[in-house]
Amino acid sequence: MLDASLLNRVRIVLCGTSHPGNIGASARAMKTMGLSSLYLVNPHSFPAAEAAAMASNAADLLDRAVVCSSLDAALSGTVFAAACTARSRDLPHAVLTPREAGEQLLRESAAGSVALVFGPEKTGLTSGEVSRCSAIAMIPTDPRCTSLNLAAAVQVFAYELWQSAQLPETSPQDAYQAACYEEVEFFFSHLEQTLYDIQFLDPSQPKRLMRRLRRLFQRARLEKEEVNILRGILTAAQKARSNS
Amino acid sequence: MLDASLLNRVRIVLCGTSHPGNIGASARAMKTMGLSSLYLVNPHSFPAAEAAAMASNAADLLDRAVVCSSLDAALSGTVFAAACTARSRDLPHAVLTPREAGEQLLRESAAGSVALVFGPEKTGLTSGEVSRCSAIAMIPTDPRCTSLNLAAAVQVFAYELWQSAQLPETSPQDAYQAACYEEVEFFFSHLEQTLYDIQFLDPSQPKRLMRRLRRLFQRARLEKEEVNILRGILTAAQKARSNS
Repeated sequence: MLDASLLNRVRIVLCGTSHPGNIGASARAMKTMGLSSLYLVNPHSFPAAEAAAMASNAADLLDRAVVCSSLDAALSGTVFAAACTARSRDLPHAVLTPREAGEQLLRESAAGSVALVFGPEKTGLTSGEVSRCSAIAMIPTDPRCTSLNLAAAVQVFAYELWQSAQLPETSPQDAYQAACYEEVEFFFSHLEQTLYDIQFLDPSQPKRLMRRLRRLFQRARLEKEEVNILRGILTAAQKARSNS
Repeated sequence: MLDASLLNRVRIVLCGTSHPGNIGASARAMKTMGLSSLYLVNPHSFPAAEAAAMASNAADLLDRAVVCSSLDAALSGTVFAAACTARSRDLPHAVLTPREAGEQLLRESAAGSVALVFGPEKTGLTSGEVSRCSAIAMIPTDPRCTSLNLAAAVQVFAYELWQSAQLPETSPQDAYQAACYEEVEFFFSHLEQTLYDIQFLDPSQPKRLMRRLRRLFQRARLEKEEVNILRGILTAAQKARSNS
């Protein structure tokens, strides 16, 4: 089950963002994952038409965004903040993966507001800014190319936050009606008979081929309706032959 | 441990992309996660300055992108393809989470090239396109806002692929020779023709039934030898009828 109230406590804090398009795209990324609280520290250009264009239907997040003049102001009242960075730092905080960060942020949010902090596109967060946060979070990347687009990074963390907010549920496989044992066995008998009728099966060696076909259809985990369709095909093949 | 050579076998296939900026941003997302093989099916505008601008330092991926005029061409030679969609479909294939998709794509890539297929920004993939793939992959989202930006979706899947590539080797699949895309498609054509021949298929409504059958056999992940057996059966059914 989703606990949406916890996601409402997660602030996404964007510091010194250069491109307003990235602010809009970040808002869109947040909204797809149930996040709604956007803080902007000294954005270069905001509000801006480009932000609205990239936000798609997350314009409401931009309207409600809190613009601050310092990271301190954006973190005010939070009980936990994770700094997102692409570089490993001198000061070794615990470095969380996005998955771990999502889990911890939600865990800590039980006690109050929490924040995930992103730096400017070109430079990232300063060491001073990182040191105002409780942990560092880093997206694992190919070491030859470590720079994600800002909104893409927000999307990855938001995706993990959303996942963390769902308690283990039984996997929501689509409800289909599995064929029962007898139905599957009747199908195999019908198949074998038809293969004799159309003279495909070598009567001296029927078993090996049937074993191969059993393996294929057992692997597919036949559904009731599929068994009906397949048996319809077999009947049609038998009729086509005897109508001769 | 990371097996980078497996990531090289993963094609990201973008179908009918409207905005060249999304192509560039997708290339950037790929490169951060060690992916290099970009296929573009009928892009509206490519090459384009906007694509290059958004690609940042992934321009080499754009240079090497393969532009195709059909999904068939882009999937040629692949042994497994997952269709990324935001909507649940009438005929549910197995629906994979990004994590599961990343794991399965890498596992299947041991046998050859694999693909992750994305539709146009506004409309997504058609049912026909989805039915050419072996599985559906869906990013879990807030149900009130399900539409990720295309490049953001690529980033999420690429992130999971990269994670999967670093997992300790998964238990080795039984050694079998997966049928490739063309072999499976030839089988479906042969099946459809045979169903006409034995007068099983309603010529006014062929598509729905073929979609059901596609789903069944795609789920089974046909092996080369199985395709040979099945086509042998089809030929026998056709002969039995014409020998009448």
